[in-house]
Amino acid sequence: MKPKLKIIPLGGAGEIGKNMTLVEYDDAILVIDAGLMFPESDMLGVDIVIPDIAYLLENHARVRGIVITHGHEDHIGALPHVLPRLNVPIYATPLTRGLIEVKLKAHKLLKDATLHTISTRDTIQLDPFTVETFHVCHSVPDGIGLAITTPLGTIVHSSDFKFDPSPVDGQLTDFAKLAELGGRGILALTSDSTNADTPGHTPSETTINDSFARVFSSAEGRVIIATFASNISRIQQIIDIATRHNRQVAIIGRSMQDNVKMAAQLGYLRVPEGALIRVDQLHQLAQNEIVIVCTGGQGEPTSALVRMANHDHKQVALIPGDTVILSATPIPGNEEMINRTLNNLFRAGAFVYYDDLLHVHVSGHASQEEQKLLINLVRPKYFIPLHGEYRHLVLHARLAQSIGIPPDNIFVVENGAVVEFDEQGHARIARDKIQASDVLVDGIGIGDVGTTVLRERHHLSEDGFLVAVLTLDAHTGEVVFGPEIITHGFVYLEQSEEMLAGAKEAMLGALKKGGSGTALSAKLKDVLSHYLYQHTHRRPMVIPVVTEV
Amino acid sequence: MKPKLKIIPLGGAGEIGKNMTLVEYDDAILVIDAGLMFPESDMLGVDIVIPDIAYLLENHARVRGIVITHGHEDHIGALPHVLPRLNVPIYATPLTRGLIEVKLKAHKLLKDATLHTISTRDTIQLDPFTVETFHVCHSVPDGIGLAITTPLGTIVHSSDFKFDPSPVDGQLTDFAKLAELGGRGILALTSDSTNADTPGHTPSETTINDSFARVFSSAEGRVIIATFASNISRIQQIIDIATRHNRQVAIIGRSMQDNVKMAAQLGYLRVPEGALIRVDQLHQLAQNEIVIVCTGGQGEPTSALVRMANHDHKQVALIPGDTVILSATPIPGNEEMINRTLNNLFRAGAFVYYDDLLHVHVSGHASQEEQKLLINLVRPKYFIPLHGEYRHLVLHARLAQSIGIPPDNIFVVENGAVVEFDEQGHARIARDKIQASDVLVDGIGIGDVGTTVLRERHHLSEDGFLVAVLTLDAHTGEVVFGPEIITHGFVYLEQSEEMLAGAKEAMLGALKKGGSGTALSAKLKDVLSHYLYQHTHRRPMVIPVVTEV
Repeated sequence: MKPKLKIIPLGGAGEIGKNMTLVEYDDAILVIDAGLMFPESDMLGVDIVIPDIAYLLENHARVRGIVITHGHEDHIGALPHVLPRLNVPIYATPLTRGLIEVKLKAHKLLKDATLHTISTRDTIQLDPFTVETFHVCHSVPDGIGLAITTPLGTIVHSSDFKFDPSPVDGQLTDFAKLAELGGRGILALTSDSTNADTPGHTPSETTINDSFARVFSSAEGRVIIATFASNISRIQQIIDIATRHNRQVAIIGRSMQDNVKMAAQLGYLRVPEGALIRVDQLHQLAQNEIVIVCTGGQGEPTSALVRMANHDHKQVALIPGDTVILSATPIPGNEEMINRTLNNLFRAGAFVYYDDLLHVHVSGHASQEEQKLLINLVRPKYFIPLHGEYRHLVLHARLAQSIGIPPDNIFVVENGAVVEFDEQGHARIARDKIQASDVLVDGIGIGDVGTTVLRERHHLSEDGFLVAVLTLDAHTGEVVFGPEIITHGFVYLEQSEEMLAGAKEAMLGALKKGGSGTALSAKLKDVLSHYLYQHTHRRPMVIPVVTEV
Repeated sequence: MKPKLKIIPLGGAGEIGKNMTLVEYDDAILVIDAGLMFPESDMLGVDIVIPDIAYLLENHARVRGIVITHGHEDHIGALPHVLPRLNVPIYATPLTRGLIEVKLKAHKLLKDATLHTISTRDTIQLDPFTVETFHVCHSVPDGIGLAITTPLGTIVHSSDFKFDPSPVDGQLTDFAKLAELGGRGILALTSDSTNADTPGHTPSETTINDSFARVFSSAEGRVIIATFASNISRIQQIIDIATRHNRQVAIIGRSMQDNVKMAAQLGYLRVPEGALIRVDQLHQLAQNEIVIVCTGGQGEPTSALVRMANHDHKQVALIPGDTVILSATPIPGNEEMINRTLNNLFRAGAFVYYDDLLHVHVSGHASQEEQKLLINLVRPKYFIPLHGEYRHLVLHARLAQSIGIPPDNIFVVENGAVVEFDEQGHARIARDKIQASDVLVDGIGIGDVGTTVLRERHHLSEDGFLVAVLTLDAHTGEVVFGPEIITHGFVYLEQSEEMLAGAKEAMLGALKKGGSGTALSAKLKDVLSHYLYQHTHRRPMVIPVVTEV
């Protein structure tokens, strides 16, 4: 029996196949992307979420390499955590490679990495896979989709894409290659589902030029624009419009500065002479000659924009008359932080433009009509919606069905599921999944924060804790020290002295009834918990510490 | 000098003047509404947020009463917490009174409350205030705005409103009264800013009938609709459409059942014979004869919808073929919970409709053109935007300015600010604010959870805590017991034994250098914190407990 061909999506924080996808045949595994997700709100204290690479570590020798489709965090952000454990060759287009290098350099990992540059119309041989690349439009230049030819057929992987008719860099999604692939006969298409609930077409990146021009024309003071550090296309638009309006652009923030420098060096950013200025030179300009570009489009508490709004930034403070544009889509879960930032920007006296008010941002992902167009161009036998939450996958599957893909040939799967193809070209979902839990990164620790620690953090976040320390004489059972109570996150101590004195009384009362060791501790815990709930209707984590000396 | 007339907004969780507004003249204070807000995501462990009534308690004898504008939580929800401390008469229209009674009964407070019924075109005398009511459309019937005539002029308070041309209950916003008031000369208008960033008109409540009809026509199984428990208009629409499609409606959830019963008794809900059915009778019907209405439109973890989706509800489990409609606008901060619920509904095999996919909900608040219409009808001298976050107030102020209200006559204020009018009819913002902090309710405690406790909860939620217990001989300084380490929410213990053993070593090392009392504790804390950060890059709350016996 010939080996099977397998497609396995990986990801995190509710997104399926977004951060990593595996293609496996015989003794070879090809990895597509290695991105991170930001933690969901109940992943308390977690810094980032990365895909589970346990399966790859177990099969280290079989991994041929990682092909990166574009330079966004959710596709490259896990590399600093993956490479030290799985140092395989990385393949990326020039700008994507540049963004990876900036990142690896910051993590002091660049020297040990093996990077190969590929082009947006390229063919690389990673036996038994032949990987052909084709350009796709997205909100960062130099993005690619992949056609992976295997002994059992060709898989087309769209990655994040849209059909932008007028992209900022002039590079269209590669219709010709897609049509050619469609003519060749494609076994399976895996495609971007992010906007599967959005009808029609996603507007072109350049449609926001008009809004920007309107804002620039009317702004009497500085113009400050917040966007993602890797949104090179948006930065290009800003530089172009600023130049036309006789303004100079200052970039704030290390990662954005590094990206801009790198993109300009590689020729992905056209920077006219004198278009950029350093922040410490801004005092030389009049207010209406200034544009500032910074991060903070998600209301991130430590971002430059939030610090400026709160008058907490070293170099720039917002002043009345400033105009601020938030050019970003809220990541679900960030809405409240963004709203708070907007309120503080208004409080600081700024004119603020955000997407509800003016068309200042477009999605980088295909809407329904574009998703259908891709399917019609590629005409795959099988369709696997990826890149989205579960509901997006289902909606994308229905779209595919509506244009003629038979329902039995569509697979809506979760992370870790294995879609396998046999030599007759029949596909099915394998009974066994591979390990694919959300791997949480907190500080240095990778994966050690799991259900138990999160449950404790959640408990502590709701009602705090109370530790009661008591030292007994080992011989007589008399109290030698305590009870002393240490409590945080539970009640306001200054108002709770009486209640806490009562808690001590309750402990001593329980003590009189005898007992020792764990039985005594358990009893004290019960008595204390009951007493505290009665007096507060709160349930702090209660921990009696009884020592005998 | 004559007394001044004052308008004072109160509220919580970032909303200004939404939950309570005070009108004060001489020795009299009139209170408008007493609502609650749900906590913002950084108000860890907090149940609800209510307005600060310290000023009212200080001036208890001067409070004439509370006029309630409509029966939503953000306008009545604080009554159970306010009335025990400020038991003044309450004035409300019949349905609003009914919703208040359901609430007070649940809190065993109904007997002690003084409730007066008023109509939607009424005049009540609360000296020196003459309060005239006028009907306003909103997403609950029987809502009113107020015209409050004082010795210094008349204030019009819109409360939550929209100009719905075809409301479910047929009752329009009272144009005639508003025009009459405008002709009379109005000192100040306070108006609903919620949708000040939304251009145009808010669609009528009845525009969603078409979407509902489409869903009902195509649904082959049960139809399950999630909405707010107090959304009587939406429930009316559902009953009407269900009846037309030969389906019977079961209401799930105590508060919604109570509201429906009460509204039907008062004649605000037209329930045809046999339109409703009890949940325990549903087995008598075919799947396509069933409609279920429940709460859960915000993805609340304990709501009926979420439990059904998770197969965790006692009476109803979702099955493939069910159709689910989420008929609610996400409250900012709830998006992630809603998305998760949507994903689980799709996972359960349901056809799911939400606002991105189909027009199944409309806002209850006026959009920009309606906000302008109200200002043009009332033609106030002064304009005070209320009911919204700060940015909405600023945008509403700009709208008012765009249609001719002079900027000096517009006051954008924060909660607790006092807008005062003198006898010449001049207004200004008083130098002093009244106390107006967010009052957090957690369990029984009202207001005891503040900055300190929240900061501790935040710290604990990020990295947990570590208590190190150590008992020393008071004479020799020798270690009698310990160090013992108790830690939760910090690391996964099973993987951390070595690291924690090292922490004990570090403590003992520090101990050897001598010291006692608080100095020793402080040193141990430093040493431990440093050690733990080095080994984990986390900063748990570190508490050494050193006792001497």
